[in-house]
Amino acid sequence: MTDRVVAEANPALIEDLVDANRILYHLGVVDGFGHVSARDPNDPSRFIISRSMAPALVTMADLMAIRLDGRPVSDNAPTPYLERFIHGEIYAARPDVVAVVHSHSSAIIPFTVVPTATLKPLSHMSGFIGDGAPVFEIRDTAGPNNDMLVRSPELGRALAKSLGAHNIVLMRGHGSTVVGFNLRQAVYRAVYAEVNARQQSEALRLGTPIYLTPGEAVESAKANDGQQDRSWNLWKRAIADKGLA
Amino acid sequence: MTDRVVAEANPALIEDLVDANRILYHLGVVDGFGHVSARDPNDPSRFIISRSMAPALVTMADLMAIRLDGRPVSDNAPTPYLERFIHGEIYAARPDVVAVVHSHSSAIIPFTVVPTATLKPLSHMSGFIGDGAPVFEIRDTAGPNNDMLVRSPELGRALAKSLGAHNIVLMRGHGSTVVGFNLRQAVYRAVYAEVNARQQSEALRLGTPIYLTPGEAVESAKANDGQQDRSWNLWKRAIADKGLA
Amino acid sequence: MTDRVVAEANPALIEDLVDANRILYHLGVVDGFGHVSARDPNDPSRFIISRSMAPALVTMADLMAIRLDGRPVSDNAPTPYLERFIHGEIYAARPDVVAVVHSHSSAIIPFTVVPTATLKPLSHMSGFIGDGAPVFEIRDTAGPNNDMLVRSPELGRALAKSLGAHNIVLMRGHGSTVVGFNLRQAVYRAVYAEVNARQQSEALRLGTPIYLTPGEAVESAKANDGQQDRSWNLWKRAIADKGLA
Amino acid sequence: MTDRVVAEANPALIEDLVDANRILYHLGVVDGFGHVSARDPNDPSRFIISRSMAPALVTMADLMAIRLDGRPVSDNAPTPYLERFIHGEIYAARPDVVAVVHSHSSAIIPFTVVPTATLKPLSHMSGFIGDGAPVFEIRDTAGPNNDMLVRSPELGRALAKSLGAHNIVLMRGHGSTVVGFNLRQAVYRAVYAEVNARQQSEALRLGTPIYLTPGEAVESAKANDGQQDRSWNLWKRAIADKGLA
Repeated sequence: MTDRVVAEANPALIEDLVDANRILYHLGVVDGFGHVSARDPNDPSRFIISRSMAPALVTMADLMAIRLDGRPVSDNAPTPYLERFIHGEIYAARPDVVAVVHSHSSAIIPFTVVPTATLKPLSHMSGFIGDGAPVFEIRDTAGPNNDMLVRSPELGRALAKSLGAHNIVLMRGHGSTVVGFNLRQAVYRAVYAEVNARQQSEALRLGTPIYLTPGEAVESAKANDGQQDRSWNLWKRAIADKGLA
Repeated sequence: MTDRVVAEANPALIEDLVDANRILYHLGVVDGFGHVSARDPNDPSRFIISRSMAPALVTMADLMAIRLDGRPVSDNAPTPYLERFIHGEIYAARPDVVAVVHSHSSAIIPFTVVPTATLKPLSHMSGFIGDGAPVFEIRDTAGPNNDMLVRSPELGRALAKSLGAHNIVLMRGHGSTVVGFNLRQAVYRAVYAEVNARQQSEALRLGTPIYLTPGEAVESAKANDGQQDRSWNLWKRAIADKGLA
Repeated sequence: MTDRVVAEANPALIEDLVDANRILYHLGVVDGFGHVSARDPNDPSRFIISRSMAPALVTMADLMAIRLDGRPVSDNAPTPYLERFIHGEIYAARPDVVAVVHSHSSAIIPFTVVPTATLKPLSHMSGFIGDGAPVFEIRDTAGPNNDMLVRSPELGRALAKSLGAHNIVLMRGHGSTVVGFNLRQAVYRAVYAEVNARQQSEALRLGTPIYLTPGEAVESAKANDGQQDRSWNLWKRAIADKGLA
Repeated sequence: MTDRVVAEANPALIEDLVDANRILYHLGVVDGFGHVSARDPNDPSRFIISRSMAPALVTMADLMAIRLDGRPVSDNAPTPYLERFIHGEIYAARPDVVAVVHSHSSAIIPFTVVPTATLKPLSHMSGFIGDGAPVFEIRDTAGPNNDMLVRSPELGRALAKSLGAHNIVLMRGHGSTVVGFNLRQAVYRAVYAEVNARQQSEALRLGTPIYLTPGEAVESAKANDGQQDRSWNLWKRAIADKGLA
């Protein structure tokens, strides 16, 4: 049974959130791990996210509401993700953010561990990366024997601080977190951050790449924001064809 | 309902155009973005292309006719692609061209941003690349704060000028555009330009590759032109098996 | 008909072992070759494994019990894998191990043949790699004209010695073997060792990677051990969707 | 209707030949191009191969018999592959060979164009590569303006000469040809030559790889020859699951 608080939320958003979980799996952004959330449009002090489980298997009944400090809203809530603080503390620090995707997508990982390699926007599809993605070093807060997980409000705040005003933050030896002004935008960004990483990695081996200028990054991101339903409709159909939705 | 003008066009071409959209998606040349067009055989001053949407979902009813200057032929036309000027201005500049594919295919992007790396024909499947693909730098026309999109006749003309007499032009930080003397040939070229990019990138890391001589490029392209239905029939069957057609 | 000894074993373990074969194929860890075993919970001096065949096609009826020295338990046993000594001798040397996966997964092979490249944990998903995977050189035991296969108890013992107290051992020009404290953990490790190899290979080309500290490796491995059913449930569903189970 | 001569051949071989076409497509060794043949067991002076078409679509009715000099055996034979001379001249030069696969598989192409990079056996799965694959340079026979195709007996003989006593010959800017003592072995070799190329390419970027010794190559190839049905059964099932057989 769906979390009572969730059941009262915008049905269209709930449907999108379930789809987002499956789309991110279908496109290889998440595997058994990773999570996606949306801020509750009825109450910006909480967000909606799946209980702790593989994203591909999430249904409406698995969604739950969590307060920004990480406490589930409902009594008898199911087990939440250990790393829900990624979402809560970013929503707390960034009132403009209404959706968050955390993943371990594969091509991004190398950029999280090589200090001399900064993820930068290579094409107009990834203008949202702006002037380059910051990298969160968990050791700075949690020390050298940490378990790499953002498992406390304190670590969530440190991550949100690394994110700053960016749309994406890499996490050393772990993955990345992207934010959006709406859920479909956050999914788009998670997908194309991975695409950009793969292409940038190739480009760096060919020679010295020309990146988008700051102006090109801003303008192309704006242009793509107007086209997000084109991808969304395709992805929704793709998961339906695969029997994932 | 199909555009009235389109409905009068060659039914075999219309079927191929719908198939082309799905084939390009099936083979990973386009994702939610990219487009393919054919010049109207009844009126060379216009071309047929989908309305603005993801190629994989295009049906006959989504096709529309557009004049070479970018104006839809029909009143009450649906929303056209922002970048229809890629197609129109190339058809205007190149009377020999009857089909155009624009895509962001992944392995080509690195070659668009590294000035020292020129896409060249590595194998007999990609002789159509000729003496190396030119690269269109949109900044030269649109300035440093452009949104990377070929969204005007002026930018379309600049792109067509970069293309010149080649069969393919790369677009910095964006993708590529290939042209053909028929639709199936243009699809073939879009597919194997991407294959060539992937293989060339690998070869460049192994050492200094031997490329096709100009004569080999011309002759192998000619030989392959006679074999295009072999690939087309395979791809048509593949999209049917996937339920895409 | 299932091996009589196997039929008496824990039904849940048997089901997991069949699933493990198919999951490892589904995720590209094994192809026609490779094998997975579990120590018999009723008798630690023997282990359960498929007869010699492609893992993807294994059913319950193909499982057999083998003694640690490599002799099948049942009379009239089917043909066992030539390399069953990998399993038997590791179980003999490591009483803590209850599951073993041997594979030729593709991204790991390069790390087995380049002495200067050591497989190390790049992200929190692969903390189990610890301070770096040892490499087994079969020539040291079998001489320069060997057939690369661990086809005798002596070679199995040499491999177990290379493994030592690690969770994974690479095999030069051959593949790798991972061990687990339970079957699902061994499968998880086989999957993420391959993921780590792919990412580490990319990272090494970008520059000098930061690896997990020994403390991070231990702590993140511990954290993931508590989450293994999340992946397992996903993978079980994925093989069912593919008609593999 | 099947070629009359083919209809008289060994039914098991005919079935394997159809399956071989589909398996090679399923595993990405061939796309719309490439071909596989078997020497006619009833008459070693001819071989059986598909008419000119995409391998994935080949059925029994598409098979035809061709003489070693490239002339179809039957009157009214369908259009044969332009490059049938690859097969015929190798069968003529190598009485020990009973099956041939020609493909453009992707990871091998870079090794055909970089003179300093020799395809060598990296793992026990590819011992059949022996002391390194020779490379056929078509320009040496056909001059600098050739169309890259082995379209004459003379070119076929030159290719067979490059192959010599090896099991595989690379073709510059084109692909490769592998031979086998039986059809399943030739398919196995085509598949694992591609796997080896991919892994060797990765290994070369990590450092200096240790290749199999000549003894290891011979012995591991011998061991794998005894296991070929394991892969074949898996692949046959995989194409059946995909509706390809």
